[in-house]
Amino acid sequence: MKIAIYGYGNLGRGVELAVAQNPDTELFGVFTRRAPETVKTVLDSTKVYAASDITRYKSDIDVLVICGGSATDLPKMTPALAADFNVIDSFDTHADIPKHYAAVDAAAKQAGKIAVISVGWDPGMFSLNRLYANAILPDGKDYTFWGKGVSQGHSDAIRRIEGVADARQYTCPVQAALDSVRAGENPDLTTREKHTRLCYVVAKEGADKARIEREIKTMPKYFSDYDTTVNFITQEELDRDHKGIPHGGFVIRTGQTGINGAHKHVIEYSLKLDSNPEFTASVLVAFARAAYRMNTRGETGCKTAFDVAPVDLCAMNRDEIIAHML
Amino acid sequence: MKIAIYGYGNLGRGVELAVAQNPDTELFGVFTRRAPETVKTVLDSTKVYAASDITRYKSDIDVLVICGGSATDLPKMTPALAADFNVIDSFDTHADIPKHYAAVDAAAKQAGKIAVISVGWDPGMFSLNRLYANAILPDGKDYTFWGKGVSQGHSDAIRRIEGVADARQYTCPVQAALDSVRAGENPDLTTREKHTRLCYVVAKEGADKARIEREIKTMPKYFSDYDTTVNFITQEELDRDHKGIPHGGFVIRTGQTGINGAHKHVIEYSLKLDSNPEFTASVLVAFARAAYRMNTRGETGCKTAFDVAPVDLCAMNRDEIIAHML
Repeated sequence: MKIAIYGYGNLGRGVELAVAQNPDTELFGVFTRRAPETVKTVLDSTKVYAASDITRYKSDIDVLVICGGSATDLPKMTPALAADFNVIDSFDTHADIPKHYAAVDAAAKQAGKIAVISVGWDPGMFSLNRLYANAILPDGKDYTFWGKGVSQGHSDAIRRIEGVADARQYTCPVQAALDSVRAGENPDLTTREKHTRLCYVVAKEGADKARIEREIKTMPKYFSDYDTTVNFITQEELDRDHKGIPHGGFVIRTGQTGINGAHKHVIEYSLKLDSNPEFTASVLVAFARAAYRMNTRGETGCKTAFDVAPVDLCAMNRDEIIAHML
Repeated sequence: MKIAIYGYGNLGRGVELAVAQNPDTELFGVFTRRAPETVKTVLDSTKVYAASDITRYKSDIDVLVICGGSATDLPKMTPALAADFNVIDSFDTHADIPKHYAAVDAAAKQAGKIAVISVGWDPGMFSLNRLYANAILPDGKDYTFWGKGVSQGHSDAIRRIEGVADARQYTCPVQAALDSVRAGENPDLTTREKHTRLCYVVAKEGADKARIEREIKTMPKYFSDYDTTVNFITQEELDRDHKGIPHGGFVIRTGQTGINGAHKHVIEYSLKLDSNPEFTASVLVAFARAAYRMNTRGETGCKTAFDVAPVDLCAMNRDEIIAHML
C-alpha cells in the first residue's frame, strides 16, 4: 500500500517514521507547499514533491495522509483532495466536525473514494473508547482528562505576551479528581477542578515578570478558569528540559448494572505518550490501511473511527488475528 | 429489537437485566433446559420457555444470546442454534476459538444468519484493545493482567479438596509488575511474577487445615506456579464478605516510535467490575444490537468483536454519535 503525506510539519514527519515501521506500507513521498528542494526530510530516502503537482500522481498513491491544521487548512484541503484520493485527516475542532463531515462526504462519494476524518487520539482513540463504554454501560457517566502534556495553543498564547521570549505550557489532570472518578463517586467537576496549567516562561531581558505572570493567569479562555503556575526559567533550561512534545490522558466511564444499579463498573482507557505527533501519526497510518481496504471493497464516502471494523486496522491477516489476539 | 436468552444462570440473569437498561431492546424471553415452571426469573415480566421448543419462535426473535459454558455447551449449542437464529456467545476457551469459529461460520453462512462469538471482556473488550494497540504500535509488547477478581474455576478446585465446605479464590495482579510495565521497562514476567492467588476457605469441622492448605498450594496448574495465600474463615464470614463476583484487569501495550525508537508510549485499558456476569452480559447485548444490524444489511457468517464497526454497537444514531462522541 502506497501512502503519501500532504503537509510536512511535526505530524508529517511522524507519518514518515510510522510508515517505515509497518511491513505493508510504503511511502510514495511528501507533498509540500514550500519549494521541495528546501525541505529536509527525516529519512534520506523520502522524496519531496510540490503540493501543486499532486493530481499528477493520482494513480500512484493508495492513501493520502493530510497533515494540515484544523483551523484553516483541513476544512479546504480534505474535501478538495478527496476528489482524487483516499484521504485521512486528524481534524480536531470537535464543534465543527459535522460541517467538515458533510463537505468531505459529498466530495468522497462523488469521486468514489474513502475519506476518514478526525483520526488521532482525541478525536480518535478517545472517541472510540467513549463509544464502546457508552454502548456497554448505557447508565453511566463519562469523564475525559488530558495530560500531563504540552498544549501548543497555550504555549503560543503565552509567547504572544509582550516581554516573553519563549514558553512551554503543560496541561495536567488533577489527581484528586481522577481518584474521585475512579472510586465511582460520580463527581460533577468544574473546569478548575479537572485540570491545572503549568507554564515555563523565558522572559526577555528587563521584562516585568510580575506583569507577564499576571497577564498569563488572567487570560480569558486559556488560563483564567484554571489554577495556573508560572515558572520563569532560562532559554537554556527550556531547551534542555522542555523540548519534547509529550501528551496523554484518560477516558473513564463509570456506570451501573443490576437491580437498582447495585453493581458499579469502571472502564478506563489511558495514554502516556512521549511524542504526541508521532503517536497521532501512528494512528493515522493504521486508519490509512483500513481506508484502503474499505475502498478496495467498494466502500466510499466519509468515515470516522466509529465506522472502521478493528480487523481492518491491523497488518496481520484475519485468521491470525482471531487465533492469536481474541 | 427482540432478544432471547438461551441458558439461564448468572450470565443469563445479567442479560435479562441488561436488556431492560437499553431503550431499543426488548426481551422475548428465556429458554431453559429445566422445567420452565420451576425457573424463577429476576424480573416478574420475563417469560420462560422450554429450550426444546425454541425453533417454534424462529420468526419472533431477532437475536439469541447463548449463555452456556465454554467447555461442553457452546461448542454444540452455537453452531446448532446459528442454523435458525442470529446468535451471540461468550466462548472463552482461547485455544479452541479457531475450531469453534469454523463450525459456527459454516452453520451461520448456510442459514444466512450472523453469529458473533467470544464476546465479553476477555475475550472481547480486552481482545479489541490488544488489536487496536498492536495496529497503532507495531513495535511494542503486550501485557494482560487479571483481577482483582473471583475465579470460579479456582474456587471450584478448592471446594473439591477433602475437608473443604466452601471456598472463594481471588486472582490478584502483582502491583510491582504493573508498575514496571507502566514505566516502560518491558519486563519479561513469569506466571508467579504477574499474579498471586488469594483463597478464603471454610473447613469442615475437624478437618486438617494444614493438609488443606498444602493441597491447595501444591495443586498443579491451578496454584503451584503462584504465590498463594490461604485464609480459613467461617461460612458466615464467607457469605458476608465474599458473595460478590467482582473482576477486572488491565491490558497494556508499551511501544516505541521515532528514530531508533526514541519515543516510548503506553496504552492502557482497564476494567474494575463489581459483577463479572452483569458486565459480560452488557457487552453481549451491545454486540447483539450490532449482529442484528449487520444481518439486516445482508451480512452473514461468523463474526468476532474485531469485525464489528463500533458505530453498530450503540443505540444512538450515527449522526448523533459523530456530533457528540467524536
